[in-house]
Amino acid sequence: MIKKPYLLSPGPTPVPPEVCQVASLPLIHHRGPEFSAIFREVTEGLKYIFQTELDVLTLTSSGSGAMEAAVVNILDPGDKALVLNAGKFGDRWGKICRAYAVDVQEIKVPWGAEIAKEDLAEQLAAHPDARAVFCTLSETSTGTVYDIEGFARVTASTDALLVVDGISGLGAMPCPMDAWGVDVLISGSQKSFMTPPGLAFIAFSPEAWRHVESSRLPRFYFDALAARKGLQKQTSAWTPAISLIRQLHKALEIMQNIGLEGLFSHHRVMAEATRAGIHALGLELLSENPGNILTAVKTPAGLDGNRLVKIMQEMYKVHIAGAQDPHKGKFFRIGHLGFTGGFDIITALTALEMTLGDLGYAHKRGDSIRAAQAIIKENWQ
Amino acid sequence: MIKKPYLLSPGPTPVPPEVCQVASLPLIHHRGPEFSAIFREVTEGLKYIFQTELDVLTLTSSGSGAMEAAVVNILDPGDKALVLNAGKFGDRWGKICRAYAVDVQEIKVPWGAEIAKEDLAEQLAAHPDARAVFCTLSETSTGTVYDIEGFARVTASTDALLVVDGISGLGAMPCPMDAWGVDVLISGSQKSFMTPPGLAFIAFSPEAWRHVESSRLPRFYFDALAARKGLQKQTSAWTPAISLIRQLHKALEIMQNIGLEGLFSHHRVMAEATRAGIHALGLELLSENPGNILTAVKTPAGLDGNRLVKIMQEMYKVHIAGAQDPHKGKFFRIGHLGFTGGFDIITALTALEMTLGDLGYAHKRGDSIRAAQAIIKENWQ
Repeated sequence: MIKKPYLLSPGPTPVPPEVCQVASLPLIHHRGPEFSAIFREVTEGLKYIFQTELDVLTLTSSGSGAMEAAVVNILDPGDKALVLNAGKFGDRWGKICRAYAVDVQEIKVPWGAEIAKEDLAEQLAAHPDARAVFCTLSETSTGTVYDIEGFARVTASTDALLVVDGISGLGAMPCPMDAWGVDVLISGSQKSFMTPPGLAFIAFSPEAWRHVESSRLPRFYFDALAARKGLQKQTSAWTPAISLIRQLHKALEIMQNIGLEGLFSHHRVMAEATRAGIHALGLELLSENPGNILTAVKTPAGLDGNRLVKIMQEMYKVHIAGAQDPHKGKFFRIGHLGFTGGFDIITALTALEMTLGDLGYAHKRGDSIRAAQAIIKENWQ
Repeated sequence: MIKKPYLLSPGPTPVPPEVCQVASLPLIHHRGPEFSAIFREVTEGLKYIFQTELDVLTLTSSGSGAMEAAVVNILDPGDKALVLNAGKFGDRWGKICRAYAVDVQEIKVPWGAEIAKEDLAEQLAAHPDARAVFCTLSETSTGTVYDIEGFARVTASTDALLVVDGISGLGAMPCPMDAWGVDVLISGSQKSFMTPPGLAFIAFSPEAWRHVESSRLPRFYFDALAARKGLQKQTSAWTPAISLIRQLHKALEIMQNIGLEGLFSHHRVMAEATRAGIHALGLELLSENPGNILTAVKTPAGLDGNRLVKIMQEMYKVHIAGAQDPHKGKFFRIGHLGFTGGFDIITALTALEMTLGDLGYAHKRGDSIRAAQAIIKENWQ
């Protein structure tokens, strides 16, 4: 048999053929009118997805670069920051802050657990000198989504800026920057943006820009003032990843044609179908509040989660993701964001059933498919 | 007429069709065996071009990111550094160092001027506490190449590390890292590497690694220890620009098939043909020691250099580069690195002759072509 590969990881995500194709066009120069026209439309498209009237800056880096950009542009050495840590990427906020000698106070909960806005309010009351709150829209390590709207209501009455990692969440679930009052919002190209990795995005509120202008943390490559100066000339501060920006241009066109509401409801259906399939197999979700971006599933008792993921990837060529340190093997993650369709969910669940069968997990073949199919069919329009 | 575009800028440079094509392949995951195999071969290919047995780290950023990585990984706050500044990119070393509170001593010469190793020796004697010397192999803003071998002989007898920006030079002119004793060498994908922008490379000597292990400048995204840890697992620290790495893989295969000596002699012919054409038009070079990467030509008296470049780009669709601030209009730059052929030089010179004619510069049509053609024909093998 020809064993076709399928990518159902929470990043990188599948890229539409039209977006793949433009990558093979000859290069154009990044200081010319053709690139400027593309860059202007890319920035407008990003503003649409960020739901903001503010500038959205495009960086040539992975999402972690934009996380660093958020930290180094708004804080001073020794500033206090409150970090909401509920997984690998919340933890990364703390690591970046500490690398720059920021005084980190953490609200740390187990992977997959929720964080109530009341807990944030309590911690902010205990630390009224906190200059920023770092949180995560969709924690990619667990699939949990967080109450950014609630967090923003809390920070609005304090001096702290609200910084949101929207890397895997933005474009798949709502996070309207201006309406909710997010101060710094970041994302990356390889998630719902249907583009290969290598680009990251960041936007600052007017209050955050005031911090940028006075911030004394050291920075050069990720300096937002340099990026903004570039943007005013419709280009980037440093030589950008030109071919990736061209791909993003095409991807944003596709996303805008679908529309934000369409993107949100698409991801909702993908997630509901996946969750229905998982429940039909008697499996449990990791997350207390699973989002529509990816689904983290606890490895059934007695099974080796690493082996499960390995069989899925190597025998059935369905690339889902395992759990990251320190939870390796304890759960697995099915990504369903970006350019993923209903039949991709069916494929993932079928490969999962076949793998569970290989591992001796008792289940009735097709149960997960029946459950997922019902939801996909019901929403087929 | 159909007006075909030609890219003769000193970066980005033309990308071979085979390298363009692989960008449109579906994405693979960066934590899997298929990517690891590609990444391992990419690292080996980079070692071949760097002429080193040391690890070469691949970063998702433009070249400026690798410059920052060089600074923040080897120095401590308040350290003294000697910067050789003979153009925009030498100047950038100083800017990055100052952004991180490094004490910068500059050897500053006019754009296009040489820097003798004796001057470096004198400055190092005056500043024996300098911990690093930052210099440039090929100053992209002027086309001048510098005596890295000589600089390395000078630093060898001191405690200072030699850090070389090989962004536009490496792969086009010799800079054997191990043989010459360069401590930190960086480059970028969009120059002689025949790949779109978005990747940068950095290698550290054993002595430089000792600095990395103890360095106290703040860093996260560009942390070399994180990149080295990734490399040991045949992957990158953060999500890399997967599609660009795949393109680089193909480009390195092409470069290795040509071989280093072949690449060097190719660039020599391109440069000699260009210089012969320029001289035949009675024009002058900017540089005291022009390299084979790009050719900077002084704008003839009475002509507007900005207009010349604009006519070349907009009317004839031949994209050469102008001079950068603060020398705008005073000279122009023809890039001939990476995937550029002899007939591209003929195209550039023809468009230049047509443009000079439009601007009323007296010359005999075809003179530059005759001179360039002789060199191309003589070396055609």
